[in-house]
Amino acid sequence: MTTRDDCLARDRADALAPLREFFTLNDDQIYLDGNSLGPVSSAVSARVRAAIDEQWATGLVRSWSEWMEWPTRLGDRVARLIGAKADEVLVADTLTIAIAKLMGAALDQRPDRHVVITDAANFHSDLYIIDEIAARAKRPITVKTIDRNTLAENLDDDVALVEFTHVDFRTGEMLDLAGVTRQVHDAGALMIWDFAHSTGAVPLDVEGADVDFAAGCGYKYLNGGPGSPAFLYVRSKWQGVVRNPLPGWLGHARPFDFEMTFEAAKGIRSFLTSSPSILGLAALDGALDVFDRTSMSDLREKSLGLTDLFIDLVEARLPGVFEVVTPREHDRRGSQVALRHDEAYAIVQAMIAHGVVGDFRDPDIARFGFTPLYLRYVDVYDAVDRLVDVMGSHAYEDPSYRVRNAVT
Amino acid sequence: MTTRDDCLARDRADALAPLREFFTLNDDQIYLDGNSLGPVSSAVSARVRAAIDEQWATGLVRSWSEWMEWPTRLGDRVARLIGAKADEVLVADTLTIAIAKLMGAALDQRPDRHVVITDAANFHSDLYIIDEIAARAKRPITVKTIDRNTLAENLDDDVALVEFTHVDFRTGEMLDLAGVTRQVHDAGALMIWDFAHSTGAVPLDVEGADVDFAAGCGYKYLNGGPGSPAFLYVRSKWQGVVRNPLPGWLGHARPFDFEMTFEAAKGIRSFLTSSPSILGLAALDGALDVFDRTSMSDLREKSLGLTDLFIDLVEARLPGVFEVVTPREHDRRGSQVALRHDEAYAIVQAMIAHGVVGDFRDPDIARFGFTPLYLRYVDVYDAVDRLVDVMGSHAYEDPSYRVRNAVT
Repeated sequence: MTTRDDCLARDRADALAPLREFFTLNDDQIYLDGNSLGPVSSAVSARVRAAIDEQWATGLVRSWSEWMEWPTRLGDRVARLIGAKADEVLVADTLTIAIAKLMGAALDQRPDRHVVITDAANFHSDLYIIDEIAARAKRPITVKTIDRNTLAENLDDDVALVEFTHVDFRTGEMLDLAGVTRQVHDAGALMIWDFAHSTGAVPLDVEGADVDFAAGCGYKYLNGGPGSPAFLYVRSKWQGVVRNPLPGWLGHARPFDFEMTFEAAKGIRSFLTSSPSILGLAALDGALDVFDRTSMSDLREKSLGLTDLFIDLVEARLPGVFEVVTPREHDRRGSQVALRHDEAYAIVQAMIAHGVVGDFRDPDIARFGFTPLYLRYVDVYDAVDRLVDVMGSHAYEDPSYRVRNAVT
Repeated sequence: MTTRDDCLARDRADALAPLREFFTLNDDQIYLDGNSLGPVSSAVSARVRAAIDEQWATGLVRSWSEWMEWPTRLGDRVARLIGAKADEVLVADTLTIAIAKLMGAALDQRPDRHVVITDAANFHSDLYIIDEIAARAKRPITVKTIDRNTLAENLDDDVALVEFTHVDFRTGEMLDLAGVTRQVHDAGALMIWDFAHSTGAVPLDVEGADVDFAAGCGYKYLNGGPGSPAFLYVRSKWQGVVRNPLPGWLGHARPFDFEMTFEAAKGIRSFLTSSPSILGLAALDGALDVFDRTSMSDLREKSLGLTDLFIDLVEARLPGVFEVVTPREHDRRGSQVALRHDEAYAIVQAMIAHGVVGDFRDPDIARFGFTPLYLRYVDVYDAVDRLVDVMGSHAYEDPSYRVRNAVT
């Protein structure tokens, strides 16, 4: 079995180890919740301070000539992480609003079809917005919320659109991006991918996978901070074809001509509505810097090393205690590990009290995210060590760990 | 005629004068563009720094238990400035998205009516979103974009909704909030007000005026910074009745139970979609502090003093040169003055070069915003002095001032 010394040796040999220095992390805490909110990296504060003290305070309204470019400039930075081209990604709004825009735009392209398919295990905000957009659509639209493994039998020539989340927020299972997209296209339907748990976590090739539309958030593996703006991707072949269903003046071809009728800007900018949070964009801009020092394939290799190690140690040291819900196969795993246990909620609380931050997902999942930018192999070892303590001592049975908080 | 010494004396007697100390302003620049982007006030940087260095860096994901309250806590702070009650205002998203939400929610309440009325002089982003929401509505909706002075003859029992901007972004004309709302209600229709140029600029009494719905932005007179989140107001009597057409998990009654079907949270929170920019909210929170030191009625009194002085001096010193488009009557004026001139664009550019920042609005308006929080009477005097110079010397005829920038 892997020892703590083995882990220390792997850390010494890890080419990504120096990236940890860019992050602010709490001493005596192992943070396995970067899949909920990534930590602060070093360029963030400076970039936000410059936006406030220099651009806003001194440049005032004139700074908009630069800020106007940020939603697309940051979009281009995100594009490099997902295999998109320049001018295919826009950073603005929130993830659910981005999904709403893409769904409206996509439905327009299949006017004779009446079904939208989504995944019963999808993130709930996706389910809510899909239901509501469908209910408000001009033509009758039925939402089929299916077991995603039954996609094949649900696809027919009445399906307009499929929306799936690429990495399951609960189980960490990663879907086959190219395979599912092809299957959907073969049925004549369009595909929207939610990359919330994929961007910055796993290599993505939206171009190679022929993805139509996608969206993701800035605050998980991209470390853009709380409520960091979302991004949306519209493949270049769809640009100039699809229409932003929530248009605003900043997406107009000539925003400062104040024309009475909307004429979409060329390119991805047409999906911009009105002024995005510049401080939010500044923070994300700083957070993306660390990605320039590595590659998604190097990050992926280490991510798999960390999650393999975690699974191996949990199964070896706590045999039969948890069901490892996350797939063992590399090509079906994101960058998190989900453990099922009836007492998952209390176990997560006890682990936090013991310095290991993961999170709970209803009803019975303890979720641990592994971010290779700042996590070490020894952190994985120590986290499992504390899990062994918590389970062995039955610490999690303390009633205080069963009190449900609003935010977990 | 008022002299510079008179202005200095008025400033010495001005009870609001000490508030200027809370703002970062450029030396040798008179900033009359706070109606486009307000300047930085002193609590802003500290509040953003605390959000990054303390809450995010140290508290990490646990800080969400506090951040979750910010959209409604800040909403309550904005509520006090517009005459709303607690739990009637939410801060999130952008202004155009807020209008989209309110329009969808309002249309649901008049299912047998087919007309939406808006103002041909409205801000363009409002026109774009209204057109698109109408075009995508389930039932046929006609948008009538009218001269707002013809509202009476356009109101009939097929009108579902009227959306007007309360203070005209171009001319500075303020509409009769209570009177128009009553007129619309008398026709059985609902009213959405855009308060972009009203909030923090003029006293508002949404309760007394029986306003149904309203929205506004944080970056103008509230000084919340570039892309500061917007707010929306839903009168308490409509809450639990109307439905957010862009629902998301943070507006669910139990967001962390991850239920498959949307059930709206009680109160204004149901209009929240997904995670708003926490840094944007932190900045706005700091910016609102200065409003706790004064009242909207004191601000209004000084605002009218400043705009009266500007109009008087322009008419006295540059007779016949400009058409003063902004109404003379106090109850029809916002907190800006618009001057019409064929060379308005070049004049604004020349004024900026001479240290007075106003802005241009197509086709022929030089727009000057007056924010009593940080402007002095002597600033008004000096601004007109420079306008006299620019016009007298024909400085604005320099061809460089005619070059159109993307952002003005």
